[in-house]
Amino acid sequence: MTIRIKVWEKPLLRDPVLVCGLPGSGYVAKIALDFLVSELKSSPLATIYSYSFPPQVLIRSDGSAELSKHEISYVKGQSQDLLLYTGDAQPVNPQAEYELSDRVLEFAAEFNVRRVFTLAAYITGQFVKTPRVFGTATSQELFRLLIQNGANAMSEGTITGMNGLIIGLAALRGMEGACLLGETSGYVMDPKASYAVLSLLKKLINLDVDLTPLEERARQGEVLRSILESMKKSTETQLERDLGYIS
Amino acid sequence: MTIRIKVWEKPLLRDPVLVCGLPGSGYVAKIALDFLVSELKSSPLATIYSYSFPPQVLIRSDGSAELSKHEISYVKGQSQDLLLYTGDAQPVNPQAEYELSDRVLEFAAEFNVRRVFTLAAYITGQFVKTPRVFGTATSQELFRLLIQNGANAMSEGTITGMNGLIIGLAALRGMEGACLLGETSGYVMDPKASYAVLSLLKKLINLDVDLTPLEERARQGEVLRSILESMKKSTETQLERDLGYIS
Amino acid sequence: MTIRIKVWEKPLLRDPVLVCGLPGSGYVAKIALDFLVSELKSSPLATIYSYSFPPQVLIRSDGSAELSKHEISYVKGQSQDLLLYTGDAQPVNPQAEYELSDRVLEFAAEFNVRRVFTLAAYITGQFVKTPRVFGTATSQELFRLLIQNGANAMSEGTITGMNGLIIGLAALRGMEGACLLGETSGYVMDPKASYAVLSLLKKLINLDVDLTPLEERARQGEVLRSILESMKKSTETQLERDLGYIS
Amino acid sequence: MTIRIKVWEKPLLRDPVLVCGLPGSGYVAKIALDFLVSELKSSPLATIYSYSFPPQVLIRSDGSAELSKHEISYVKGQSQDLLLYTGDAQPVNPQAEYELSDRVLEFAAEFNVRRVFTLAAYITGQFVKTPRVFGTATSQELFRLLIQNGANAMSEGTITGMNGLIIGLAALRGMEGACLLGETSGYVMDPKASYAVLSLLKKLINLDVDLTPLEERARQGEVLRSILESMKKSTETQLERDLGYIS
Repeated sequence: MTIRIKVWEKPLLRDPVLVCGLPGSGYVAKIALDFLVSELKSSPLATIYSYSFPPQVLIRSDGSAELSKHEISYVKGQSQDLLLYTGDAQPVNPQAEYELSDRVLEFAAEFNVRRVFTLAAYITGQFVKTPRVFGTATSQELFRLLIQNGANAMSEGTITGMNGLIIGLAALRGMEGACLLGETSGYVMDPKASYAVLSLLKKLINLDVDLTPLEERARQGEVLRSILESMKKSTETQLERDLGYIS
Repeated sequence: MTIRIKVWEKPLLRDPVLVCGLPGSGYVAKIALDFLVSELKSSPLATIYSYSFPPQVLIRSDGSAELSKHEISYVKGQSQDLLLYTGDAQPVNPQAEYELSDRVLEFAAEFNVRRVFTLAAYITGQFVKTPRVFGTATSQELFRLLIQNGANAMSEGTITGMNGLIIGLAALRGMEGACLLGETSGYVMDPKASYAVLSLLKKLINLDVDLTPLEERARQGEVLRSILESMKKSTETQLERDLGYIS
Repeated sequence: MTIRIKVWEKPLLRDPVLVCGLPGSGYVAKIALDFLVSELKSSPLATIYSYSFPPQVLIRSDGSAELSKHEISYVKGQSQDLLLYTGDAQPVNPQAEYELSDRVLEFAAEFNVRRVFTLAAYITGQFVKTPRVFGTATSQELFRLLIQNGANAMSEGTITGMNGLIIGLAALRGMEGACLLGETSGYVMDPKASYAVLSLLKKLINLDVDLTPLEERARQGEVLRSILESMKKSTETQLERDLGYIS
Repeated sequence: MTIRIKVWEKPLLRDPVLVCGLPGSGYVAKIALDFLVSELKSSPLATIYSYSFPPQVLIRSDGSAELSKHEISYVKGQSQDLLLYTGDAQPVNPQAEYELSDRVLEFAAEFNVRRVFTLAAYITGQFVKTPRVFGTATSQELFRLLIQNGANAMSEGTITGMNGLIIGLAALRGMEGACLLGETSGYVMDPKASYAVLSLLKKLINLDVDLTPLEERARQGEVLRSILESMKKSTETQLERDLGYIS
């Protein structure tokens, strides 16, 4: 196979926007997509398997085993429909990342997708209270739209992996692509960054979803994190005392 | 070639079950399969070579040299026949693990195989007296059968390599797949874990084999291991004394 | 795609020479090529994308995102035309370096290119005032020309990556290839080495370009480097004093 | 291309034997083959290029640059002809080692080669006065011949890389293959081991060559090595004294 796309349905979609979030740093994109898939009334559209996924089966919570897979679902909106794309893991080699990104865009093109948003992480190595959202796009028009809606601009750097490639390859197909990057330390799963990118995404596309549950989850994560942090700090202080680093 | 399958015979098999065990941690699966191949009246069915095997020849005990290879044998049972699949080494790259797993299943499908069992290791880093056997399956029906027969359920984690992939890919072909994982430290060859998984497998399929020789081998291994362990412990204790760690 | 070449124009070129400089140590070749592309009146000829480029998009200075790409431009000269080839990054695997080098030469062959120059770095691990230029070629005739014009000969070693492969593969196509290697420490971006190789290249081909801006840039880099060096030295000395290494 | 074989001539060969030695540990095989190519009246038969060779050009001693390549030469013997196969470097990935080995054997099969000898290193980590030669073969008949002529048998282990693969793949093509492994430390280029394997090879095939020059080269290497060793030893002793390890 190399890549096998099982299509479950062939719905008619109105001017659909593709939103992608593959697992990456802080699971920022994956958490956001999983949230959209479960909160919106989404229907499975296609399941993707690939020889280039990690060579393993995953044990699901019900005890069953399953190959790593990617899934595309669709959501019927009021004026505009939505394609959601996420999955278990990115391909294990760079060439396969290109190949799969391109195949997914080819699939999206069959539904006349013209705009593609990917979500990603902007890694700073620092924990922050309110993560910023950075934005980049393949067209100046879309880029300005991001900035007008509160995204921060970047002027250098790279977005690695499929969350970057998909918008780059979209441009080669005549689609517009934008990536929203949520600021994150990169050390832990970070639903707060996911919340931040989705808050911005809501301004950009017709996304009828209440983000409160995700905000709640982010807050709980935050509480947990600060408990862990203060425990760690007190341990370190104790350790430093014990070792005589602090007099 | 990439993959070359030399078929030695085209037997008629009754409702055959495929049992797979490729080399992995603790050689749990490989020891079990080698035992079945030698103890059951098995006949060679096919030999598999692949450009993705480790790039080397193996020196056999008679001094001769031979490429790494995989072998499928068959066993005629009373009510149900058996296909046994094992080999010298797993492919050296992930994509080739997928490809070969799928080719072997395609081959098995020609014999109308509907159930596939793989054996594997459940690594704990601990030495145990009586290894548990964990089980997972691609269908709820088969999963329940495993649990009813004493397998422990898992709710997360992965099974890496072909012993995992084969059941995942089997499901895509409409076959049922299950994996039995023998608890093992992961540090040494562990026939005790192999014995444990085969004991469970005997309850699941028509397997007319006396496991006593394997149990004996496991016991000898156990004796050797505890001698080594107590030697190691006494050395460490001595060392700690010498270094003043223990007062 | 694997490799996609978008051709922008099909100009008639007179006896064109191909000059290549892909990113490598000290960015010697890339700086030189970027300089030629911007200083000469060059026109875009082709843009190259490949699945084997690093799997990422680059953020450009205007905030937009774009796939890694390579570009071939052409320059109309008085007696002889020029093809310039450079790009964002080399392919991520060796086989793809061969494949792309060969494709670019195939493309160049359509314009009847007969001579190919690549630029590269000659790494010494030492900072030097006046970098030497080393030269090698695939024909004795071209090699002598390099030496006559001041290039230093080598008698062993390798030129790794596409800046080496392109001349090796050119020879298999009946073209002549030469590589000019600018001496560099290998530690920093080194426009001085770029200046050195271009100075030699000007003697070898009809290259109507004023290198003064590059020389200026090299001088500024040099000033910056010596400030950094003396700061580093004084810090180290201080550090050594603090630690009592120097009495 | 992937693999390109340039054939220079199509000689009629009588019952030719293929002797292979690609670069590996201690350059045992490569030194031996280079010696045969230069000492015997050999003619170039084919040059092989591959996208899977190291991605670089080599600077030859005359200052010219050339792609890595492999070469097959032939030698007309009194009763039996010879094919000699060696090259600059082994492919950079395992699958390519299989592929190239198989292509070379396919090429050899066109000349009705029925026996294939490869040379290799038997690494011990120890310097020895008189290196032993180990032997393995793909047929019991050829194996016995090796042992009768003084080769030492092995009963386990692997021969990695093309020097191993070629005999393994030869067996799949119905040819007989044998590998002669010269004992070597693995630390330095070891012409003494090359001398040892060629001395045995001379007994096995019609090889009209005087090994004295190679023996001489080995002796010089030996002298150099013992000088280096005693220098090293005296330095270490001095160092140990300085550090007070020895009282």
